[in-house]
Amino acid sequence: MRYVIIGGDAAGMSASSRIKRREPDSEVIVFEKTQDVSYSACGMPYNIADADKSIDSLIVRSAEAFRNSQGIDLRTGHIVRKIDHAAGKVSGTNSVGDDFEIEYDRLLIATGASAIIPKVPGTDLEGVFVLKTLEDSRRIKTFLEKKDVRKAVIIGMGYIALEMSEALSARGLDVTMIKKREQLLPWMLPELSEVVKKELTEKGVSLNSGLSLEGIVKTEGGLRVNAGGKIFDADLVLIAVGVKPESSLAAEAGIELGASGAVSIDRNMQTSVSGIYSAGDCADTLSIVSGGKIWLPLALTANRGGRLAADNMMGERQDFNGIAGTAVFKVFDIEVAKTGLTISEAEVAGFNPVYKTVVAKSKAHIFEGAAPIHASFIADRDTGRILGAQMVGTEGVARRINAAAVALQAKMTISEFYECDLAYAPPFSPVWDPLLTAASMLMKKTGVPD
Amino acid sequence: MRYVIIGGDAAGMSASSRIKRREPDSEVIVFEKTQDVSYSACGMPYNIADADKSIDSLIVRSAEAFRNSQGIDLRTGHIVRKIDHAAGKVSGTNSVGDDFEIEYDRLLIATGASAIIPKVPGTDLEGVFVLKTLEDSRRIKTFLEKKDVRKAVIIGMGYIALEMSEALSARGLDVTMIKKREQLLPWMLPELSEVVKKELTEKGVSLNSGLSLEGIVKTEGGLRVNAGGKIFDADLVLIAVGVKPESSLAAEAGIELGASGAVSIDRNMQTSVSGIYSAGDCADTLSIVSGGKIWLPLALTANRGGRLAADNMMGERQDFNGIAGTAVFKVFDIEVAKTGLTISEAEVAGFNPVYKTVVAKSKAHIFEGAAPIHASFIADRDTGRILGAQMVGTEGVARRINAAAVALQAKMTISEFYECDLAYAPPFSPVWDPLLTAASMLMKKTGVPD
Repeated sequence: MRYVIIGGDAAGMSASSRIKRREPDSEVIVFEKTQDVSYSACGMPYNIADADKSIDSLIVRSAEAFRNSQGIDLRTGHIVRKIDHAAGKVSGTNSVGDDFEIEYDRLLIATGASAIIPKVPGTDLEGVFVLKTLEDSRRIKTFLEKKDVRKAVIIGMGYIALEMSEALSARGLDVTMIKKREQLLPWMLPELSEVVKKELTEKGVSLNSGLSLEGIVKTEGGLRVNAGGKIFDADLVLIAVGVKPESSLAAEAGIELGASGAVSIDRNMQTSVSGIYSAGDCADTLSIVSGGKIWLPLALTANRGGRLAADNMMGERQDFNGIAGTAVFKVFDIEVAKTGLTISEAEVAGFNPVYKTVVAKSKAHIFEGAAPIHASFIADRDTGRILGAQMVGTEGVARRINAAAVALQAKMTISEFYECDLAYAPPFSPVWDPLLTAASMLMKKTGVPD
Repeated sequence: MRYVIIGGDAAGMSASSRIKRREPDSEVIVFEKTQDVSYSACGMPYNIADADKSIDSLIVRSAEAFRNSQGIDLRTGHIVRKIDHAAGKVSGTNSVGDDFEIEYDRLLIATGASAIIPKVPGTDLEGVFVLKTLEDSRRIKTFLEKKDVRKAVIIGMGYIALEMSEALSARGLDVTMIKKREQLLPWMLPELSEVVKKELTEKGVSLNSGLSLEGIVKTEGGLRVNAGGKIFDADLVLIAVGVKPESSLAAEAGIELGASGAVSIDRNMQTSVSGIYSAGDCADTLSIVSGGKIWLPLALTANRGGRLAADNMMGERQDFNGIAGTAVFKVFDIEVAKTGLTISEAEVAGFNPVYKTVVAKSKAHIFEGAAPIHASFIADRDTGRILGAQMVGTEGVARRINAAAVALQAKMTISEFYECDLAYAPPFSPVWDPLLTAASMLMKKTGVPD
């Protein structure tokens, strides 16, 4: 049996490793367009923050290791340009310009996502970056090393933008952030978003909302960013306005696209074409909460999806039941966590969402280092079912969200959650965990604050 | 309506506050034998560790505050000696020696637990302590202040004993621990228990297992502890061999006792006598996992139980469905967490337990400060249902256990848990949370390690 996998990142390498482990005699060929496989993409901002740390420390496993110890035929520098599913083959070009073509028995599309670049002038200038691949990290790090970089402008205020605001501040840069929409993190409840905003401002980051990027021009001293009629000078510009699924290869082959233009897959990770599967950031997925299709590029989902795709490609039927949509990140001294639906997602999905935010402590109030946590639960007013949770605070936030993630998986109501026996000891929690306090308040369903 | 509550700690004060909030015109009388109400008992070891911190900083709310701002008739220094349920009254003595007697419409027994004191000579000597009440803390702290205390012997190795080994080490004492049974924490999986043992030894605590306390005698220089034929000199001895429910008052009134000799209560917190309720450390409870009666004195259960008892006493029927049995504590640099049943509890409850321990990282391996976590899941071999989880590690353990606690509440199987979308970001977790890795390994049901 020959398995061909397009893309050698989280989903692709999870799948190929699993197939080789289960079917050592099968042929597993992976085409990866870059030279890098299996690296911690989420670790890139932290690596960039530290001038002394080599980029290679982000590599979890080298291409050689996959080839030698696992027997995966991993072909880096190979771009797949066409899927011919009628003929059951893929074709492309390698890094030295040679064409290749190969037949497959089962195909996995794991092409990931790519950075969105606004269609304005100047995004290709020297000193203008995106951060999506390990190669992007290398370029940014080399630029910081070689040039006299003092001022950075970050376009966008999502996870990557925020993590990079911290990373570039740690490198001693003045950081200015610019974004189109008014709210900092639009999915976030406004009172939580304010906590993040305050933290950024206190840490010296200049926030500029409501400004649409018009273009970047080269000046004598560096770069000039034009946005919403204003001018921002910069030595380095990072475009971090989001990512989009790399689904064009699939689309050109006539494979159906789904949520947000990602490759549409069924519960068995199969695309609209039999024998062709997809996983990772290029594919859509299901929300465990709404049951509907969503596109949410997350590392765990990619790893999990790769593994499940492998099982199904090998003929072992395994259903993917969806994800809660849990995401955590750190920005300066603040931990941010969410799981499940946002208020607007809940409304779109036909729920009647109510929410409650409490400000509780991360530890017993008598304990050293007890810090405020803003904890919010969102539930359906009619049924009490939990729809989501969000938290921000300096301490004890990120791992706490897992309790809510499990509750979403179990389709618990808010009063069922309130009965949970969460951990208490003074160094770790108040007697009533912040999420229990939020649940208790939400049970009263006093309605959404004005 | 007159509500009489015996005991002014977590359960009693939770109940009385709730009744007064819901029924401001009702009479709520609380008899508390000590002068202290509403203090952080769990915070006592941390307070003792810090010579500069006043004992009063453990007080959450003073007796005056309950009296004045909540209108609770809180009578400290009042010992209830008899419950006459046929006549619907209680009687006792107050701290100045006067007798009292009062009728009740509804009665709550919230008498808590008391320290077990082995029946050997010398436990009443000066310098020999237990740690159960705020007054015990005061005595220990005063003794540490006034005397030249260099060597402490702790009898027992449970939570309190371990927390106090850290506290007394922090005060500069040489700490020796003595216990009867061989294993450090008998409920803990042996490989996890070893981690705790190693930590204690590394921090200079002398551990002596398999020695039964024979007695304590006064010597010229201080105290001498005789245990298992060995002799240990000490300036201070802490007896921390466990607690027992304070249920004698109830038993003498003919109220049925249940698990471990605690007051037996139904799902509505009512005892065998109509109109008399019980909550907190003196009462038994239900295991959400086995459905059976257990006695597990925990702060959250006491608070929750007090609240639920109040609701039921006021006629609002509220069921208590039981607890997972979640407990966390810190000993030196180690966090210890458990939820659910132990292996032996699972066997007694008729399950066929299998377990798997993994050693994973608390954060992404590339991230500064990533520390090993030993994470174990216990499940039923036949059904896959999760029965319990245990974790130890220096970082990221205590809040992580909540995910397993919620899973127990939801009666999840281990493969359902494996589908949970737990949080990932390099500063907080590997892509696969340690509990997911443990779940994945346990799913294979390779059996219990030798």
